[in-house]
Amino acid sequence: MSSSAPFAPRPAPPYYAVIFTSQRTDGDAGYGAMAAEMGALAAAQPGYLGAESARGSDGLGITVSYWRSLEDIAAWRAVLAHQAARDRGRAGWYSHYELRVARVEHAYGWDAADGSADPMGTPGTPAASPA
Amino acid sequence: MSSSAPFAPRPAPPYYAVIFTSQRTDGDAGYGAMAAEMGALAAAQPGYLGAESARGSDGLGITVSYWRSLEDIAAWRAVLAHQAARDRGRAGWYSHYELRVARVEHAYGWDAADGSADPMGTPGTPAASPA
Repeated sequence: MSSSAPFAPRPAPPYYAVIFTSQRTDGDAGYGAMAAEMGALAAAQPGYLGAESARGSDGLGITVSYWRSLEDIAAWRAVLAHQAARDRGRAGWYSHYELRVARVEHAYGWDAADGSADPMGTPGTPAASPA
Repeated sequence: MSSSAPFAPRPAPPYYAVIFTSQRTDGDAGYGAMAAEMGALAAAQPGYLGAESARGSDGLGITVSYWRSLEDIAAWRAVLAHQAARDRGRAGWYSHYELRVARVEHAYGWDAADGSADPMGTPGTPAASPA
């Protein structure tokens, strides 16, 4: 369904991104288990394309999940709402978050193994290869 | 220009996001100074709306910067290209990155201080307040 690599695949745009930026509270309180479960659940949803996630030692994290369509995202959010109703503890996991839904219009990647000498310098070649 | 808080403002959509996911190599090699400089430079660009950034202990990081228009992003990328030509060391900072440009269509936030008991459970109220 999805690779375990830290980078999401790169299908041809357009597709959709859900950008979730959150500030974690202190302590785990079941968060780690929930996050793993939700990641697996997301990966099993129709239209899921992949996700990337990072969280610093200050507790600020960004997870971006990628989806084929807005309808797929709406269906996923319905699943999330169902989970939220079950997980009474979740109100304590975050002190703040921002969520944005965005349509990906251009995408490209760069890898050191490709031998480019100038990453980010001349990034004008959109890559459209499916993953 | 921009706040120093970890969360970017939330202007009314549509606006644009540049999602930059990167794997850092080991060691600093001037990266920290460059990142601070680039952040300040971005914040001074026309159309810059804010940014959010997180990097985990594994070196995987996500920075999302927000912009008023695609034209503003193109201008920023021209600045980046100029900097890249100057910074000969940058080829060593990343082993891989993915960059996506996306149009933000919906956005909302949640804060524990607002007293909601169910974060992410019923997120269907798009917030359009400017920050």
